[in-house]
Amino acid sequence: MAACTVYSTQSLKTNCFISTPSSKTHYGFHSKQIVLYSTSKRNKRVNNPYVITCAAGDTQTVVIGLAADSGCGKSTFMRRLTSVFGGTAEPPKGGNPDSNTLISDTTTVICLDDYHSLDRTGRKEKGVTALDPRANDFDLMYEQVKAIKDGVSVQKPIYNHVTGLLDPPELIKPPKILVIEGLHPMYDARVRDLLDFSIYLDISNEVKFAWKIQRDMAERGHSLESIKASIEARKPDFDAYIDPQKQYADAVIEVLPTELIPDDNEGKILRVRLIQKEGVKNFSPVYLFDDGSTISWIPCGRKLTCSYPGIKFAYGPDAYFGNEVSIVEMDGQFDRLDELIYVESHLSNLSSKFYGEVTQQMLKHADFPGSNNGTGLFQTIVGLKIRELYEQIVATRAETPVKAAKA
Amino acid sequence: MAACTVYSTQSLKTNCFISTPSSKTHYGFHSKQIVLYSTSKRNKRVNNPYVITCAAGDTQTVVIGLAADSGCGKSTFMRRLTSVFGGTAEPPKGGNPDSNTLISDTTTVICLDDYHSLDRTGRKEKGVTALDPRANDFDLMYEQVKAIKDGVSVQKPIYNHVTGLLDPPELIKPPKILVIEGLHPMYDARVRDLLDFSIYLDISNEVKFAWKIQRDMAERGHSLESIKASIEARKPDFDAYIDPQKQYADAVIEVLPTELIPDDNEGKILRVRLIQKEGVKNFSPVYLFDDGSTISWIPCGRKLTCSYPGIKFAYGPDAYFGNEVSIVEMDGQFDRLDELIYVESHLSNLSSKFYGEVTQQMLKHADFPGSNNGTGLFQTIVGLKIRELYEQIVATRAETPVKAAKA
Repeated sequence: MAACTVYSTQSLKTNCFISTPSSKTHYGFHSKQIVLYSTSKRNKRVNNPYVITCAAGDTQTVVIGLAADSGCGKSTFMRRLTSVFGGTAEPPKGGNPDSNTLISDTTTVICLDDYHSLDRTGRKEKGVTALDPRANDFDLMYEQVKAIKDGVSVQKPIYNHVTGLLDPPELIKPPKILVIEGLHPMYDARVRDLLDFSIYLDISNEVKFAWKIQRDMAERGHSLESIKASIEARKPDFDAYIDPQKQYADAVIEVLPTELIPDDNEGKILRVRLIQKEGVKNFSPVYLFDDGSTISWIPCGRKLTCSYPGIKFAYGPDAYFGNEVSIVEMDGQFDRLDELIYVESHLSNLSSKFYGEVTQQMLKHADFPGSNNGTGLFQTIVGLKIRELYEQIVATRAETPVKAAKA
Repeated sequence: MAACTVYSTQSLKTNCFISTPSSKTHYGFHSKQIVLYSTSKRNKRVNNPYVITCAAGDTQTVVIGLAADSGCGKSTFMRRLTSVFGGTAEPPKGGNPDSNTLISDTTTVICLDDYHSLDRTGRKEKGVTALDPRANDFDLMYEQVKAIKDGVSVQKPIYNHVTGLLDPPELIKPPKILVIEGLHPMYDARVRDLLDFSIYLDISNEVKFAWKIQRDMAERGHSLESIKASIEARKPDFDAYIDPQKQYADAVIEVLPTELIPDDNEGKILRVRLIQKEGVKNFSPVYLFDDGSTISWIPCGRKLTCSYPGIKFAYGPDAYFGNEVSIVEMDGQFDRLDELIYVESHLSNLSSKFYGEVTQQMLKHADFPGSNNGTGLFQTIVGLKIRELYEQIVATRAETPVKAAKA
């Protein structure tokens, strides 16, 4: 490490040129890398420099935020998303085996738990949960996401979920698409503003409870009371810090109990809603039959037979936290391939590249949770939407200089 | 009238040649006409011969039955149907001014009240209503409809609604399409079997009552009690003889109170259902978006704004008197042209000849009752369906000899 100079993160926006020094963030040149020292809450780590590399100046990373409570199918969603781009998401090669990162040719998924400023012990001492903003370093999250978006590599910390400790950082190079997934991708306004698209996975309390009972009671032998208690303990912070983020999401996948079976509380058959914000750049909502009208559709009938309790779709315009949205809903589950392809053929604006792509993606990952219901369907569709959004952003960038030259 | 010979009606099927004599019906040649004497209940008329003319042998009349209670929009329906064929329906020129018949280039509509065997006084004396089969001559109805279908003109009696008497008969020549409309087109199995297509106009009791109140109370000064009493008096015969015919109909237009306004009993906004039998030759049901599935659709939304209470459509397969049917339903009414064209553009299998034909037909007759709701819409659609059915029958006949020649 040779000469260390202090720069503002602003200077890294396009070509990494040097400008006004900042008191907050310290950068230094090291060969073709920039070394970052943070003065944030992670004081212990000031001596662990974060190396940042300048990427090719003309490509910029597209940043996607995915918010959800832990254990809500985020990793499944990420594997579906990666698959849409044709690659397989794997942990960084030769790195920390407990890394939370998943890397493919196109996408890099980082887990925002890595920005915990307090480890398990620290949280216990201060009496805060991981959901509490005070347990998270939003300054560093912002700086690093911004750096990656600007084409600069960062040394991102790792929160070790096994040990509950903060491990030494790992190098994150700017990918084509960066997905930041975790509890707080839309909590901090600065991070939120960096997102090209944001998704909130909203699992209703009933379904969360049913899932937890199924897993923790049946598989881990927990008591019903302890499960209830753990959900209740988590709820105030969840309601205060996680849940409010959904108002900012461009797409919300809402998972609810089925309405096809009266008073069902098994949580096996789901009613899933894809809430799509209108007017989002490069994002055009999926619809059923007639864009902007209100529709309910039971595809099972004369041409398609389904087993009990069948499948029901709904579509329509609505308002969501004061925003105009379009909602597509699926209640029930697919039993057979022909049901899936039939449904796909009747959804419009899927952003697929060929007829049957949604079905192909879902069959490819038939073993993933939710592949037979609306969670898998809508995750796959959102994956296609993100691919389209990415391609449109790239195309717009490619067009801009041409237009300028012509003018 | 020269030589009178006795023949069976069977002999008239194709080329009017002479065969086995029958004891029931008497035919005799008179120039190029056949004279018919009936030995049915109309004994008084045996001396009034009915003249039958042989028509061109290769065309056969398509026969449509339209059943409904009196005053249920049958004449409006008939004017809509005639209009689809491009003509205007008018009473026979130079005939009885009280004739119930409507003739256009393509269609002849006869009213089955003309087959009353008892006039008003006769019914009063015997204590039977016009709804009672005993007040109607089904033998003559069958013989004459069969004769017309076989291309033979008949002298059809006239029931004079003004005087309540049976007037001298009028000549009915075989048209391209014969519509028999009235109380009993599907009551007698022999007549029913002659129908190429049958329709039942089913006005619910609530709507009938609301309509009667509107007309008889507001316009004619009748009391609520007398209206109720007249409906009640009619009900047993209606239920016994008219209503059961709907099970035979290929299409039923059901008129119900709206469900868009809770507890509405004004009868101004209607929910109208078009119940279409599946598997009927030359008739392919209209559907909404996805043939054979179950759908509800509120077209009013982002692209189409409607005034309160809006418009709601429903579509789906169902069972109706043990038959497989497809039902299209419209609740609400059109306020503006763009609503009508929008709805037309989303209905499939309309049998229209050009885009906007349904809208054009409804605008052409904007002054007809029901032009802004499902009654007018479905009457128009049924009109288009009958045109298609007629054209397919004619095409099949034209094809048959060619095929036979090739074989």
